[in-house]
Amino acid sequence: MAITVVGSIAYDSIETPVGRRERCLGGAATYFSLAASYFCDVRVIAVVGDDFGSEQEAVFAARNIDMRGIEHTAGKSFFWEGSYLDNLNEAKTHTTELNVFATFNPKIPNAYRDSELLFLANIDPVLQKRVRDQMPQVKLVAGDTMNYWIKDHRAALYEVLKGLDVLLINDTEARMLAGNSNLVQAARAVMALGPRLLVVKHGEYGATLFHESTPKSKSAERTFRAPALPLEQVVDPTGAGDSFAGGFVGYLASQPELTPGAFRRAMFYGSVMGSFAVERFGTERLQQLSRAEIDARFHLFRELTHLD
Amino acid sequence: MAITVVGSIAYDSIETPVGRRERCLGGAATYFSLAASYFCDVRVIAVVGDDFGSEQEAVFAARNIDMRGIEHTAGKSFFWEGSYLDNLNEAKTHTTELNVFATFNPKIPNAYRDSELLFLANIDPVLQKRVRDQMPQVKLVAGDTMNYWIKDHRAALYEVLKGLDVLLINDTEARMLAGNSNLVQAARAVMALGPRLLVVKHGEYGATLFHESTPKSKSAERTFRAPALPLEQVVDPTGAGDSFAGGFVGYLASQPELTPGAFRRAMFYGSVMGSFAVERFGTERLQQLSRAEIDARFHLFRELTHLD
Repeated sequence: MAITVVGSIAYDSIETPVGRRERCLGGAATYFSLAASYFCDVRVIAVVGDDFGSEQEAVFAARNIDMRGIEHTAGKSFFWEGSYLDNLNEAKTHTTELNVFATFNPKIPNAYRDSELLFLANIDPVLQKRVRDQMPQVKLVAGDTMNYWIKDHRAALYEVLKGLDVLLINDTEARMLAGNSNLVQAARAVMALGPRLLVVKHGEYGATLFHESTPKSKSAERTFRAPALPLEQVVDPTGAGDSFAGGFVGYLASQPELTPGAFRRAMFYGSVMGSFAVERFGTERLQQLSRAEIDARFHLFRELTHLD
Repeated sequence: MAITVVGSIAYDSIETPVGRRERCLGGAATYFSLAASYFCDVRVIAVVGDDFGSEQEAVFAARNIDMRGIEHTAGKSFFWEGSYLDNLNEAKTHTTELNVFATFNPKIPNAYRDSELLFLANIDPVLQKRVRDQMPQVKLVAGDTMNYWIKDHRAALYEVLKGLDVLLINDTEARMLAGNSNLVQAARAVMALGPRLLVVKHGEYGATLFHESTPKSKSAERTFRAPALPLEQVVDPTGAGDSFAGGFVGYLASQPELTPGAFRRAMFYGSVMGSFAVERFGTERLQQLSRAEIDARFHLFRELTHLD
């Protein structure tokens, strides 16, 4: 099955305790696409400026990612500058320049319309909804958001949530969206807004998959916890969440049926791709993986969590 | 196999978002003993005052816990008052009255000397060492400590760590003890101080078991992560860590051999007992469990984490 993803392609200047990199290729759609490309066909919808050239295109082309939905516009690409000097779990943003993204109006190539899965990366919920409405045929819609949209664009975000099957957010976002500090209660409140599945990411502690409740099921029976890999060194946390989403949705796209077991394994593949992403600056590690390396780490995650 | 535990028996006045309780029976040795009593014989070394009477003794007696090492002294028992109003993960201490604990000098009954396992609950490391030195025959020594001893009694604590097989502490304590914010690096530094196994507890995110490294092993291959149960309501977090330790060490004591698999299952039983402890105020829930309930929750933890 093929995935269409809509989101940002950006340049990121990043400072971490390990060092600093200027204008790495980044953006949610980039991390997501690279991570998902190891599992299935990926088609991108995004906008870039004049500064996006053959060198950047080669990164997508090397992974056979469909670029027909990448719109080229006069101006500069989205630019973000941030640091993680005090806390590897939370970026401090120094600069955000929307540039060509400010007037982005996503257009869906006809060739993308038979995609079975859709991922709405973290962008303005108005744009997320516009894309979702144009892809009514997809089997599964997953999406991401962030504190900014939860805080100041709640009505538009609610419209997106109504059309989502899976929402992937972090603890803080889940608690903020639900207005409830208990994660189990927060998860239930978030799923009442639309998504029947909720993935809550806990950074270095892994992630939890919550399922919509049915009258007969018990809370813990509907829940699955995947670990994160205890890492000796996190070089750059940028894009870990988008890489998780790429592994999660990408693995689902590779499966003939979306069974409960497929969702559990998808949680592991999400964690696996997140763990690779943070080992190098930017998308460096995600560009050069092999499926064998990915599966070896999947088995490491199994050893890390399974009794037998 | 039998466990001897040395630690506090206390009265706790506790306030949480759910309510308030005055002078519950508490203390690390109490939580530990009750949790471990579902798995093996438990023998307690502690000191209590005149306020510890037949009602409190009945709690230990009901679980067949050996009380011959509980010293009765004129005065009041250890008293602690704390609240968790802003943050269920961290107690705010309002009052600590050592009372009879201030002059505690642990004495080990002869009947305890054939114990195969020893647990040094969180008390003054000078006392921990004194008990450990009098129990040279034990097969496994586990222990706990806290920020106060790490900060201001480091030399005495180092003497205890040299004699430990397993140290059980939380993230903050591990990072403080190692002076390193990366958990994998911190774990290695802590194990270099003595314990060959380190259990780091992550509160609502579970716990990680680190093994001493050998030249051939890789970090992740030496590591095991157990989840915590996502709970809709935490009534009272007091004693969760001691209950984890009771389940962990208690389960080990019930095993014929301390294999790697036994340590993995012990991590699950630790999490299981911690999850029960927080469901009611004080030790209420730990007093009235059955082994069938415990094993049912163990299987719930397996479902929560296992792919198949």
